[in-house]
Amino acid sequence: MKLTPEQLAAQLPTLDGWAHGAERGGVLTREFQFKDFVQAFGFMAQVALHAERMNHHPEWFNVYHRVNVTLTTHDVDGISAKDIEMATLMNRIAAAFTA
Amino acid sequence: MKLTPEQLAAQLPTLDGWAHGAERGGVLTREFQFKDFVQAFGFMAQVALHAERMNHHPEWFNVYHRVNVTLTTHDVDGISAKDIEMATLMNRIAAAFTA
Repeated sequence: MKLTPEQLAAQLPTLDGWAHGAERGGVLTREFQFKDFVQAFGFMAQVALHAERMNHHPEWFNVYHRVNVTLTTHDVDGISAKDIEMATLMNRIAAAFTA
Repeated sequence: MKLTPEQLAAQLPTLDGWAHGAERGGVLTREFQFKDFVQAFGFMAQVALHAERMNHHPEWFNVYHRVNVTLTTHDVDGISAKDIEMATLMNRIAAAFTA
């Protein structure tokens, strides 16, 4: 189910580093920067396992230590609770690297 | 060392599916399509290990079963032998999935 503007406004402040874009009915985007490629791909590998289990996959671009992520839910033409869950998960995984 | 136009012209026909772009002094690009996310990320994981060992990393975008790759060698402002090697390697890894 697509989040209402009110639901999204309530969730966004909890998602450190994520921005809301209006395209495609609504997307969440964030850039992650790591120490090097090993860390960046280690992050992606962890996220990939969760994404497959959740059956909710990110769009992402990687070059060396940088990972740019876009989250949206095609089925609802916008942002759903699954995107919030995935954004929260990515922040938690990334935080473990930079700690 | 940046490949000469003649060297590049000789190599390109051996790189099935790869296109040459003029931007940034020269890039190689290819889109790979797999059966699903598990295959696509499996491909990326194999390539990532080789990339780290070669110390030559791709730029790539993934969404579900699709992986779009750009190869270039920043140090030489264009395409080097490392890009040819990486393109060849990616084709070999991808071919094992679709066989």
